Amino acid sequence: MTYKPFILVTNDDGVNAKGLQELIEVMQLFGEVVVIAPEISQSGKSAAITVDIPLMATKLKEEDGLTMYKCSGTPVDCIKLGFNQLLDRKPDYVVSGINHGANSSISVVYSGTVGGAIEGSLHGVPSLAFSLSDYSPDADFSRSKIYCAKIFQEVVEKGLPDFTCLNVNIPTGNPKGIKVVRQARGKWVEEFEKRTDPHGREYYWLSGYFKNFEKDAEDSDMYALENDFVTIVPVNVDMTCYEALKQLKEWKF
Amino acid sequence: MTYKPFILVTNDDGVNAKGLQELIEVMQLFGEVVVIAPEISQSGKSAAITVDIPLMATKLKEEDGLTMYKCSGTPVDCIKLGFNQLLDRKPDYVVSGINHGANSSISVVYSGTVGGAIEGSLHGVPSLAFSLSDYSPDADFSRSKIYCAKIFQEVVEKGLPDFTCLNVNIPTGNPKGIKVVRQARGKWVEEFEKRTDPHGREYYWLSGYFKNFEKDAEDSDMYALENDFVTIVPVNVDMTCYEALKQLKEWKF
Repeated sequence: MTYKPFILVTNDDGVNAKGLQELIEVMQLFGEVVVIAPEISQSGKSAAITVDIPLMATKLKEEDGLTMYKCSGTPVDCIKLGFNQLLDRKPDYVVSGINHGANSSISVVYSGTVGGAIEGSLHGVPSLAFSLSDYSPDADFSRSKIYCAKIFQEVVEKGLPDFTCLNVNIPTGNPKGIKVVRQARGKWVEEFEKRTDPHGREYYWLSGYFKNFEKDAEDSDMYALENDFVTIVPVNVDMTCYEALKQLKEWKF
Repeated sequence: MTYKPFILVTNDDGVNAKGLQELIEVMQLFGEVVVIAPEISQSGKSAAITVDIPLMATKLKEEDGLTMYKCSGTPVDCIKLGFNQLLDRKPDYVVSGINHGANSSISVVYSGTVGGAIEGSLHGVPSLAFSLSDYSPDADFSRSKIYCAKIFQEVVEKGLPDFTCLNVNIPTGNPKGIKVVRQARGKWVEEFEKRTDPHGREYYWLSGYFKNFEKDAEDSDMYALENDFVTIVPVNVDMTCYEALKQLKEWKF
């Protein structure tokens, strides 16, 4: 019998998100799937871990080739709990998503979806984060799924370098193809909305828009995504800035 | 009159942490200080942002040269709220800490302290995270403060490259000096402790220990820290792995 890969799936939109269900369906083409996903939305939770309160996990489903848990923590908590407690064997792959909304450029820093994939790579297995440029809860993932399968298949064949995961972003509509690109320089420009509650206390809702600092950079993920390509950015968990390192070594203390 | 720098201070241990108070005292040597710190511990919160609930902020203190707020969110939320809502002028620097406990090697990914500094650098100002290798709430920060001042002074004189912040770790005892180093390769090995609550439900406490994959790497932060040096790692918010990028460009889709 052929060995079936054991694939751990998480996301940050929560266990009931449509994008998660779509990713599960893709991964079932490749192997045995176990899902450990946050019970509520963990959007924007980055690589956060839960240290001040304990975690809870509940098995929701166990059927042929698919086991599913919900977890009270973040995507990173889900992965850690999977590798260390819930599973009786080590997953071969970690995939995270499909996120409702893009995680291109600097969003890699804030994204819980990418956080989950980073954690997978730290557990020594090839890991991928998938996001679709559509925030709506009932987004159409039908074309995305084809690209998730295509890219995952490549990873199965070729593997990934240690300490590196893939951040995959998929445009809406009909993508022109796939590009391997770098993270665009940009930032979120916040526009907090200040309100007053019925008790007279002020509170702030975070919103804002993305500002691309290099709109014409053809080798960046934003450019490719805006031009209808699926983008793959290999993400490094070594955050050392080696260029700055050289400069700073000249400093005299 | 000489211009006094305007310095935004945050941390992840919360507004009442000793390390925060110590950092405030250092920063008051350099300029006007505004503190926006989490009202409760946000340890391990990485670069998480709060998107699903609104934020609240309360002014705790306003005296000559020092204004202090507590905020319901993460360190990144504190910085965003500062730059966008609470402050009437743009801070010149962001500093985060002094954390109770080291944030060396891969902890850079999980650390709320570093998250705060990363966010500062994204707002275009020189930003630094400071951590002391001592988790105790009443840790002795007296020597740390000298190094915080020394390193901050260098940054005031020389500036920092765009999109780069400094992750500074300080050993306990009497440091031998300061080293500019890279992030060591390593990971946290989790050891969840499984317990059962009075209602029969299982829950898990996250704990564990750090595993250094390159104990003898003299150019790494772990090595220098373990040999009693203060370490500075320049942290890049561009997480693209350029080495992997070259490899992946060869893939045929």
